Amino acid sequence: MIKKAKQEPTNREQATRARRELLIEAAVSCFVEDGLARTGMRDIAKKAGVSIGNLYNHFPGRDDLIAEIAKIDAEELAAVMAEVTDCNDPHKAVDIFVTRYFEHCANLTSAVLTVEITSEALRNSTVARLFSGTRSMLSDVLETAIQNGEHEAFGMAAESRTAVVGLILDMIDGYALRVGLTGKKPSKKDTQALLSVVRCVLSMGGGDKGDHPMLS
Amino acid sequence: MIKKAKQEPTNREQATRARRELLIEAAVSCFVEDGLARTGMRDIAKKAGVSIGNLYNHFPGRDDLIAEIAKIDAEELAAVMAEVTDCNDPHKAVDIFVTRYFEHCANLTSAVLTVEITSEALRNSTVARLFSGTRSMLSDVLETAIQNGEHEAFGMAAESRTAVVGLILDMIDGYALRVGLTGKKPSKKDTQALLSVVRCVLSMGGGDKGDHPMLS
Repeated sequence: MIKKAKQEPTNREQATRARRELLIEAAVSCFVEDGLARTGMRDIAKKAGVSIGNLYNHFPGRDDLIAEIAKIDAEELAAVMAEVTDCNDPHKAVDIFVTRYFEHCANLTSAVLTVEITSEALRNSTVARLFSGTRSMLSDVLETAIQNGEHEAFGMAAESRTAVVGLILDMIDGYALRVGLTGKKPSKKDTQALLSVVRCVLSMGGGDKGDHPMLS
Repeated sequence: MIKKAKQEPTNREQATRARRELLIEAAVSCFVEDGLARTGMRDIAKKAGVSIGNLYNHFPGRDDLIAEIAKIDAEELAAVMAEVTDCNDPHKAVDIFVTRYFEHCANLTSAVLTVEITSEALRNSTVARLFSGTRSMLSDVLETAIQNGEHEAFGMAAESRTAVVGLILDMIDGYALRVGLTGKKPSKKDTQALLSVVRCVLSMGGGDKGDHPMLS
């Protein structure tokens, strides 16, 4: 193969990229409509209107399609997280995290894909690994934001930080799933309820420590 | 058909019940091992060591097996919830709710079944309906416990109660899934972290209302 100059993508590279995007879109449609377990490579090729051979040229297997979906998801989230990391106000950073991560997850396609991929990951360690990195990245960003506000903004004890961050992510994931599966756009009220609860949890430990065995 | 006297179950009734239990156990094993989408009636009959005709005699279809699983789950939870309802101390009632509901969900079988059934429910409204009643029951019990402690125990504003209860359930569900899928017994530390966060959220609104848009 002859390597092209690196500047502008060639027509061929552009065509390849467009074809891959088409195939990913077809795969996502199939996964959402019929479920991951019921979707084969043949269904995806048919949905995209390409030959099965052409699909295999771009993606040797279904796991490669899922890996590409994981990569796109991680890239989108990384963009959101850059905003959180760039914010100097710890309160605002947490609010941005909660609002943007919730919005990222609370739509029908994301919600259905989450359920489907979780089910697939139970029996497919490659898929499980693909998404575990994203969760670690989210935890790290939120933990750092909280740590940055440790003295001025948040009363929470440092030793409970990891556990509490995990619970906050569980809550956002669960609520986003519940809102997303309705197929309606998340309302401002949805986000507000979540924000209030997260803010409250992050100020935990400021008051009656005796009541919070985890913090004592 | 001749109706038998109602007192003691007859040998035949006992045999039927035992057979149904065996079939449900086989179905759960198949669903957990291979996933719901990949399990057919033939697989379940084979796992139970009965003929497919015998399986169909007891359960006309896969949805009937899932309905029986939903029924068993709802009965087990109702027993847990009776304890919550019977408790006169609102703080204790909430603690019992959180601890027992978490323990109910945070085991491998429950966690995998939750994922599998959620995936099935996306495309099967009968299955979706079967489990929606359980969620409503859980919400009602927790909301009532909070309402009972409104004046003495919890600072939370009444108008945010339903939203907050929803978020607490999302958090317990999500965390139980995460703990349950490891296959390890939930630790005391797992439950303590959850209890602290829930207690904190329920005392929300006592302090700086200006910081909580949902409560103002």
